[in-house]
Amino acid sequence: MNRKPLILVCNDDGVYSPGIKALANAMSTIGNVHLVAPDIEQSGVGHGITIRRPLRMHPTKLNHLEKNVTAYRVDGTPTDCVVMGVQVLGRPDLVVSGINFGPNLGFDLTHSGTFACAIEGTHLGIPSIAFSLGFSDDMDFTHGASYAAKLAARVIAHGLPRLTVLNVNFPVGKPKGVRVTVQGTHHYEDNVEKRLDPAGQPYYWVGGTPSVDEEPSSDYAAVYSGFVSVTPLLLDFTHRTYLETVREFTPPLEG
Amino acid sequence: MNRKPLILVCNDDGVYSPGIKALANAMSTIGNVHLVAPDIEQSGVGHGITIRRPLRMHPTKLNHLEKNVTAYRVDGTPTDCVVMGVQVLGRPDLVVSGINFGPNLGFDLTHSGTFACAIEGTHLGIPSIAFSLGFSDDMDFTHGASYAAKLAARVIAHGLPRLTVLNVNFPVGKPKGVRVTVQGTHHYEDNVEKRLDPAGQPYYWVGGTPSVDEEPSSDYAAVYSGFVSVTPLLLDFTHRTYLETVREFTPPLEG
Repeated sequence: MNRKPLILVCNDDGVYSPGIKALANAMSTIGNVHLVAPDIEQSGVGHGITIRRPLRMHPTKLNHLEKNVTAYRVDGTPTDCVVMGVQVLGRPDLVVSGINFGPNLGFDLTHSGTFACAIEGTHLGIPSIAFSLGFSDDMDFTHGASYAAKLAARVIAHGLPRLTVLNVNFPVGKPKGVRVTVQGTHHYEDNVEKRLDPAGQPYYWVGGTPSVDEEPSSDYAAVYSGFVSVTPLLLDFTHRTYLETVREFTPPLEG
Repeated sequence: MNRKPLILVCNDDGVYSPGIKALANAMSTIGNVHLVAPDIEQSGVGHGITIRRPLRMHPTKLNHLEKNVTAYRVDGTPTDCVVMGVQVLGRPDLVVSGINFGPNLGFDLTHSGTFACAIEGTHLGIPSIAFSLGFSDDMDFTHGASYAAKLAARVIAHGLPRLTVLNVNFPVGKPKGVRVTVQGTHHYEDNVEKRLDPAGQPYYWVGGTPSVDEEPSSDYAAVYSGFVSVTPLLLDFTHRTYLETVREFTPPLEG
């Protein structure tokens, strides 16, 4: 690549999140950066896309941004930000999202706006990586941002296979090393708590405690052992080894 | 199963959609039905879940419902409806969603609220099926609903393997037969159209024309050839054959 790579940086925590600033500045060491992020936090919105109303995109000043980073905010979802960044600002060589405040592991992936950005970039044919950091009080994105730049440079040089996306999670504190992992089964128990409003009518909170994943090769095990977790995922979900069984049990149309 | 199965029916088109009524009434021939659906249309919201505000759920009268169908509306996403149905109304033997007005094929799946219901049911350990119908003026859900009941009975009897979900698409008109298919690459070209508001400021519409999928074994090819498409999908997205390559090119932490 003769010119400097163009890198699109998105997230779901919103344009003013410290995690996206750390990621954008790290990416500015290897390319020119468009930062496009939601104007408000959008955690848990998954791969939602806004098709029933128009979007606005505004150039946005942020403190302490490197000078080859230009920032914009969009009144939409994380996925909208990728679409706008690619189609309005120009096709990038790489899409990265994060660094999310909070891990994205196991079953979280389809709920995650951070991972959704990487899905969207991949569907648009652009190599894409999602970055997330474990919860902690200090929100220290330094180690993660530094490693993100190294991995991003490698992905720009090597590319990624068709429909393949990388999901990266950083542990809290200084990582002990890097592990390539499988998607585990971490999830939040979807509990529902019923309460009564002042008028005596019920309302419900969806919540739940995070589960523990005992599988040693999982994303969860790596991060909670202090390692960076790098998981390659394939966006063709066909259950190929089960096709024949489905052919056997699927009823015919008539009879 | 000695008692009648309990079936949870959800959708993303909203509680008043004719597609969910057709599906719920069809399911009432094989079990008792809880119908739980968003109070407004929620197309394209993906696997979004509402965790930052509480939800309301109201019993809802609908015309022409069979008497073993009880209906509720929720002011949330399709995924919220599954969570509320399972956790508040009682754990069902099967989760079905749809019948969506419009197909859910290829890359649409992660955007789809209909498919998200089936993801959520599967994550909760309940066999789940998503049903969608091709666009047409007459919105005739008759053939689809009739086949959905047959397939649902088969799935309740046989179960589905861990993390496995069925995505079913019906063609417009009377189907010619049933094909077990792979997830194709159908998508909407994410074009963005820029317009100026009356004050001369830009706003953007995300849209795009649907792509054509030439792969004969795909979900798309089956539906547009007039067949019911049944695609088994696996919710473990790990790209296992690519793990070793990622181990080779992933940079170490230092150096």
